[in-house]
Amino acid sequence: MNLFKQLQRRLKSVNRNCVSMCLTLVITLYYSSAFSETGYRLWMRYDRIENNKQLEQYRSQLQTINFQGHSITAQVAKKEISSAFNGLLGTEPKVTLSSSASLLIGTPENSPQIKSLITPKELLNLSDGYLVKTFHNKGQQQIVIAGLTEKGVLYGVFHLIRLMKTQQSLSALTIREIPSIKNRVLNHWDNLDGTVERGYAGTSLWEWHKLPGFTQTRYTDYARANASVGINGTVLNNVNANALSLTKPYLLKAAALANVFRPYGIKVYLSARFSSPIEIGGLKTADPLDPEVKRWWSMKVKEIYAYIPDFGGFLVKANSEGQPGPQNYGRSHADGANMLADALAPFDGIVMWRAFVYDDKVPDDRAKQAYNEFKPLDGKFRANVLVQVKNGAVDFQPREPFHPLFGAMPATPLMMEFQLTQEYLGFSTHLAYLGTLFKETLAADTYAKGKGSTVADVVTGKLDQHQLTGIAGVANIGSDVNWCGHPFAQSNWYSFGRMAWNPGLSATAVADEWIRMTFTNDINAIATIKEMMMGSRETIVNYMTPLGLHHIMARNHHYGPGPWVKDAGRADWTSVYYHKADAVGIGFDRTATGSNAIAQYSPDAAREFADLANIPDKYLLWFHHVKWSDKLRSGNTLWDELVSHYYLGVRDVAKMQSQWKAMAGKIDEDRFKEVAELLEIQHEEAKWWRDACVLYFQSFSGLPIPASYEKPAHDLAYYENLRFYFVPGIKN
Amino acid sequence: MNLFKQLQRRLKSVNRNCVSMCLTLVITLYYSSAFSETGYRLWMRYDRIENNKQLEQYRSQLQTINFQGHSITAQVAKKEISSAFNGLLGTEPKVTLSSSASLLIGTPENSPQIKSLITPKELLNLSDGYLVKTFHNKGQQQIVIAGLTEKGVLYGVFHLIRLMKTQQSLSALTIREIPSIKNRVLNHWDNLDGTVERGYAGTSLWEWHKLPGFTQTRYTDYARANASVGINGTVLNNVNANALSLTKPYLLKAAALANVFRPYGIKVYLSARFSSPIEIGGLKTADPLDPEVKRWWSMKVKEIYAYIPDFGGFLVKANSEGQPGPQNYGRSHADGANMLADALAPFDGIVMWRAFVYDDKVPDDRAKQAYNEFKPLDGKFRANVLVQVKNGAVDFQPREPFHPLFGAMPATPLMMEFQLTQEYLGFSTHLAYLGTLFKETLAADTYAKGKGSTVADVVTGKLDQHQLTGIAGVANIGSDVNWCGHPFAQSNWYSFGRMAWNPGLSATAVADEWIRMTFTNDINAIATIKEMMMGSRETIVNYMTPLGLHHIMARNHHYGPGPWVKDAGRADWTSVYYHKADAVGIGFDRTATGSNAIAQYSPDAAREFADLANIPDKYLLWFHHVKWSDKLRSGNTLWDELVSHYYLGVRDVAKMQSQWKAMAGKIDEDRFKEVAELLEIQHEEAKWWRDACVLYFQSFSGLPIPASYEKPAHDLAYYENLRFYFVPGIKN
Repeated sequence: MNLFKQLQRRLKSVNRNCVSMCLTLVITLYYSSAFSETGYRLWMRYDRIENNKQLEQYRSQLQTINFQGHSITAQVAKKEISSAFNGLLGTEPKVTLSSSASLLIGTPENSPQIKSLITPKELLNLSDGYLVKTFHNKGQQQIVIAGLTEKGVLYGVFHLIRLMKTQQSLSALTIREIPSIKNRVLNHWDNLDGTVERGYAGTSLWEWHKLPGFTQTRYTDYARANASVGINGTVLNNVNANALSLTKPYLLKAAALANVFRPYGIKVYLSARFSSPIEIGGLKTADPLDPEVKRWWSMKVKEIYAYIPDFGGFLVKANSEGQPGPQNYGRSHADGANMLADALAPFDGIVMWRAFVYDDKVPDDRAKQAYNEFKPLDGKFRANVLVQVKNGAVDFQPREPFHPLFGAMPATPLMMEFQLTQEYLGFSTHLAYLGTLFKETLAADTYAKGKGSTVADVVTGKLDQHQLTGIAGVANIGSDVNWCGHPFAQSNWYSFGRMAWNPGLSATAVADEWIRMTFTNDINAIATIKEMMMGSRETIVNYMTPLGLHHIMARNHHYGPGPWVKDAGRADWTSVYYHKADAVGIGFDRTATGSNAIAQYSPDAAREFADLANIPDKYLLWFHHVKWSDKLRSGNTLWDELVSHYYLGVRDVAKMQSQWKAMAGKIDEDRFKEVAELLEIQHEEAKWWRDACVLYFQSFSGLPIPASYEKPAHDLAYYENLRFYFVPGIKN
Repeated sequence: MNLFKQLQRRLKSVNRNCVSMCLTLVITLYYSSAFSETGYRLWMRYDRIENNKQLEQYRSQLQTINFQGHSITAQVAKKEISSAFNGLLGTEPKVTLSSSASLLIGTPENSPQIKSLITPKELLNLSDGYLVKTFHNKGQQQIVIAGLTEKGVLYGVFHLIRLMKTQQSLSALTIREIPSIKNRVLNHWDNLDGTVERGYAGTSLWEWHKLPGFTQTRYTDYARANASVGINGTVLNNVNANALSLTKPYLLKAAALANVFRPYGIKVYLSARFSSPIEIGGLKTADPLDPEVKRWWSMKVKEIYAYIPDFGGFLVKANSEGQPGPQNYGRSHADGANMLADALAPFDGIVMWRAFVYDDKVPDDRAKQAYNEFKPLDGKFRANVLVQVKNGAVDFQPREPFHPLFGAMPATPLMMEFQLTQEYLGFSTHLAYLGTLFKETLAADTYAKGKGSTVADVVTGKLDQHQLTGIAGVANIGSDVNWCGHPFAQSNWYSFGRMAWNPGLSATAVADEWIRMTFTNDINAIATIKEMMMGSRETIVNYMTPLGLHHIMARNHHYGPGPWVKDAGRADWTSVYYHKADAVGIGFDRTATGSNAIAQYSPDAAREFADLANIPDKYLLWFHHVKWSDKLRSGNTLWDELVSHYYLGVRDVAKMQSQWKAMAGKIDEDRFKEVAELLEIQHEEAKWWRDACVLYFQSFSGLPIPASYEKPAHDLAYYENLRFYFVPGIKN
C-alpha cells in the first residue's frame, strides 16, 4: 500500500509535533511486535531507522520516485525498494513520471530522463554494473540509479538500500560499480536425498520431492539475499553428483527453481556426473572422444536448455576421490572438459572443471598433484571452460598458502573456489569470519608477471586478459531458520558475494557493512563486533593448526582434533602424512630437499617460501620440517612458539566471550543468547583442540608445557579415544 | 518496553484526532515492514487487530495489569502477554499492584486479590485448569485469570490471547477450563541422525550435535506453540528407538531441551529401546524378569532423573515390526511394561506401552492382533502404565473404524494415539484437516457400558474412572520454516492440542479458531476456508480409499496408489491382503464368515458393523466382501458407487482450488501462492489415485467406467510402473 499518500491525507489536519510523535510511536511499536528473532532476515532487516535525524533526512531526500522498466527484474527491484522504504523509512516515495522525481531509476533505454542525465562514457563497459549519483539542479536534489541492464538496476537498488541501512549520506553520491568477476557462483554440495555434504546448517534448501509443483517462499528470499550481494549463479547439486539430476524429472525441478531465481539475475547450474551417459543414457562408455557419448551430451544439453533457457552450465568433479572421469578412458581432463564445452557452446553455457584432483597411484606430495595434472594442459581448454581451483593446494584448511596453479596457467581462465561452509573451521559452532581468509588469498602475490601479480588479478582475468572469469563459494546455507547455523556464519555468505563483486574491498569494510545491516549501527557495538570478527579466523588457526600445520582434524567427519590419525585408505588421508612430527621436529618439507612443491610457485614466491629467514611463520610448517629446538623470529623455540599459539587461540576465544557479553542490550536477546551459547561451545572445543594437539606433539618433542600454562584437563589417551555419533556433514 | 507509559507521556501535548491518526498509522506501518510471510509464526501472529472498534474496546478494557507470580512459568506467561498486547493492541497495560487493575492474573496463593475474588468451590479440582472471569464492581470492569497452578495461569493467559485474536467480547467472561486428559503428548519419530520417520516437513527440530550447549531460539517457539494449545509433553525420539538415546551424552542433550520446555509446562519423555541393557548396558539379556536387568533399568532411570528432575517417562514399541521386547524372553507385554514402570514409579514417571503389535507367526487378520495380545492382559499392568492404542486397528488410514481395544480393557487406562503427520494422507502436499478425523474417532460409540460409551469417555478415563489418562499425536513438525510443510498442516498440530485438552470441542469450532488466528477474521474468508477444511479429509478418503478400503498405498514409502502391491515380506504388508478384490467383488470379510474381527467389538457395535443393512457405507469394505453388482443404499451398484467416490474426490479438490482462488487479497500473497501451488499438486495426485485405483479394480470387476466420467489419462501398466526416488519419510 502507498503509505506516503495516507501520511499526506492524514497530515492535513495535524501539527508537526503530532507527526514526530507519531513517528517515534511507530518506531517503538514496530520493534515490539516481532516474533522471536531467528535470524531468518539475514542482513536484509528493513526495520525503521533508529537515528531520527538520519531518518528525517532520508525522508526528505526520497519523496518521489520515477522507476522505469517492466521486466521481471524491474518488477522485483520495485518490490524490493518498496518494502525497504516501508520498513526503513515507514513511508514510500510517491510514484511519479516526472523528470524531477527525487529518485530516478532505470536504464538509458527505458528512461529518457536517465538517458539525458547520464553520459554514454559513464555507461561504457558497465556490463551488469550501475551508477548511483546525486545531481543538484536549481537547489533541487536528485538521486539516480542507472544501469545498462535491468540486472544492473537491481544491483543499484540494493546498493542504495545498503547505503541507507548503513546510514550513509545520499547527498553527494558518485558511485560507479562494475563487477570485477563475471560468474559469481554458489556451489551447493546438496544431495538428492536432502543431505548436504559438509553441511552444518540443517539439510538442503531444495525440496526435491515437492518440486517442481511447490516453490516455497524461502526460495525467493534465497534469491533476494544472493542478488543483494551480487551473486549471479548457483550450482544446485553436489559435485559428487548423482546422474539422476540430469534426468527429465529432476531437470524440471531445477527449472522450477530457475524460474524463481531468474528475476533476481541468478542462473542455475548443475554438477554433471561424468559417467551419466552410461548410468542414465544406456551407453556402454562415457569416453569423451566417443561420437555416441558426444551426441548424448549434446542432446542432453539441448534438452536442458529447452527447460531452462538461461541454464548456466556444468560443474564437474572428475577423476577425483573416486568420481568417474575422462582418465578412465585414457583421456585428459581437457578432453573431458572440452567435450562438455562443445555441447554447451551453442547455448553460451560454460564448464567449470575442478582442479581438485589427486592421483590415486603416483604417491607424490598431495599438494603437488593438481598442478602436476593441470599445468601441462594450459591452453588446451575450450574458450567456454573455466578451471576451478581451490584457494589452497590441499583442502580448505584454516590457513593455506595460495594454490600454485594461480599464475601458472596464463592461457586458461582460473576460477577461484572458496569454502564458506566450515568443514575445517569448527562447523557452525565456531565464530569464523572468513572475509579475512578470502582477502589473504586474493591479495597474495603470485609474482607470475613480476611483483604485484596477485591472485585477484588472476581470477579477475586482469593479469592475462581473460574475458571469462569466475569465483565459487561452497555454500554454508541449509534448512536452519537462520540459514547458516551460526548467526555469524551469515557474514561469510555476505562477504563472499561482496568480494566476488569487488575483490578490492577490505575485510574490515565488508565486516562493518554486514554488522550494521545485521545487528546495529551503534558505533561502539560495531567496533567490538568487528574486532571479534577480524580476529576470529586467526584465533581458529591458533588453536587448530598454527604455524602452517594442516589437515590434522579427526578422520572423515573432521570434527575435532585428530593429529594421531594414521592408517587410512591412503597416506594423504592421514594426519601424520601432513605434520610429519618426529623426535627431531615437525612439518612437511616441501623444499628441494623434500617434495619440492615449492618449485611449483614462480621463482620469487618460491624463494620467499624456501628461505627460512624470510618465510612468514604462518606458513613455516607447511613448507619446512623444523627442529623442536630451532629458534624462530620471536626468539622462542619452535616448541614454545607452537604451544604459545595453541594457548593464545583459547585465550582469544575467552576474549571474544567477554567482548560479546558487553553486547547485551545492544542487540536482540535471542541472537545474543544464541551467540553466547555458541561461543561457550567454541571455548570448550578450542581447549579440546589445544590440549589434544599439545599433548600429542609433546609425545614427539618430549618437551614440557611451560609451567605458566594451565595443564591439559585429560591425558592424550582420553582425547584419542573420544568417539562421536551422527556427526553432521557426512553420511552416517 | 512499556509502551503505555510512552503513549501517556506523549499524549499530554496532543489531541485525540492525532492519537487515532497515530494509531491508524501505526497499524499501517506495522503490516508494511514484514519480511516475506513464511508461516513461521503459526497461529501466534500478534499483529495489530484490524477491527478498530474492537481494538479500542480491548484497549479500554485492558489498561492496567496486576500479574502476580515469579516462577519461571509466571515469567514466560508475563513475557507472552506483553508481546501479545504489544502486537495485538500496540500498547501494554500499565503494571500495577492495585487490586482494582483491569486485568488480574495469578493464583490464590500468590495473589490476595484473586484469593478474595475466587471462591474455593470454583477452584475445586481445577488441576492445571484456569478461570477467566469478568467482574463488575461499581461500574468498574475487571478481568481475572486465575489458576491453582502457574501452569494453569499460563494456559489462562493463552486463552485470553485466543479470545482477542478471535475478536471475542471480554465483557462477560465466565470461563472455567479443566483439561479432560492428563497427559497430552507429541510423539516425535525423530532419529538421532536428524531424519524423521514418516516426516514430511524437513528434518528433526533437534540439533543433537549442537546440544546440549546450543539451544536455538526455535526450541522456545516450539514450546510456546505447544503450551498455547495445552500440549504438556513431548517424546523426543523415534519409537523405533536407538539405545544411544539413553546414554549420558544424549541424556544431557535431552536435559537441555527439557530446560527450555520446562517453563512452558512441557515434560520431556524418551522412547526406550527394550534391548538397551544389552546394547549400552553390557548385559547378556534384556529379560524383564532378570534381576540384573531390573537393576540396570532402575539405575538408568535414577540417572535420567538426576539430569531431568521432571522427566515424564518412557514410550515403548516392543515386539512389533522387528523391535525387541519381552516376548523375546517368553514374557508378556505386561511383564515388560511393569518392569519399566517399577523403575519409574519412585519418580512418578509413567510408561506409555504401545499396543501397535502384530504377531509375526500367527497369520490371523492383522486388524485383530493388538486385541488378541492385549485384551487378556487387562488389569495386569502397574498403576503408572498407559497402553497406547492407535485410533484404528490397522495403521493410521484415511479412515478406520475405532480400535476394538477401546472399551475392551476397562481395568487399564488406554492412551489414544493419533497420527498428525500425513503418512497415509498425502504427505505435506495434500490439504487435510484432521480435526474431523480426531472427532469422528473420539465420538465413536464403543457401547462398552451401553449406548453413549464413546471412545472419548474411555480416553478421558470417565468410563472406567481412571485418573491416569493420556493422548498422543505423532508429530508433523520438522525443520521447514513453516514447521509442518503445508500451511494447513499447522491446523492438525493445533487441533490435536485443543481436542486433547477438550475432546468435546467440535472440529468446526477448532477450525474456526485456527483460521482466525492463522489467516484472517474476515467472516467471508473464514466461511470459505472452513468449508475447505471440514471437507478436506473426506475428499482424500474419496480419492484414496472410499467405502472402507484401506492400506492400498504404494509399498514402503506409501507415496501414491499401490492397490496392486503383493509379494511383500508378509501378507499383511501387501495391498491385496486388505482389499481382497476378485472377480466377484471387493472388501475384507471380517464378519463371522471371515476373520470375525467384528467379534472384538462389544455386541451392539458389532451388530451394526455386521449388518449390511445398517453398516455405514464408509466402513463397508472394511468389514465385508461385497459383490461388484450388489446395490448399496444409494441405489448404485458397489462398482458404480466406488467409481463415483473416486471421481467425486478429484472434483472436490478442484472445488477447493476455486474456493482458494477467491482468497486472493484476503490473506498474504506468500501463503496464498504456496497453498495454491500445493492444491495444484494435490489435484494432480488425486487424479493419479483415482485413475490408478479405478483401472486396477476394473481389472477385477470387468465393468465399465460410466461414460459421463473423463477417461483415465494412462493405462494401468503406466501407473504400476511409476518409480520414485528419495521419497521423504523413509531411509532412502
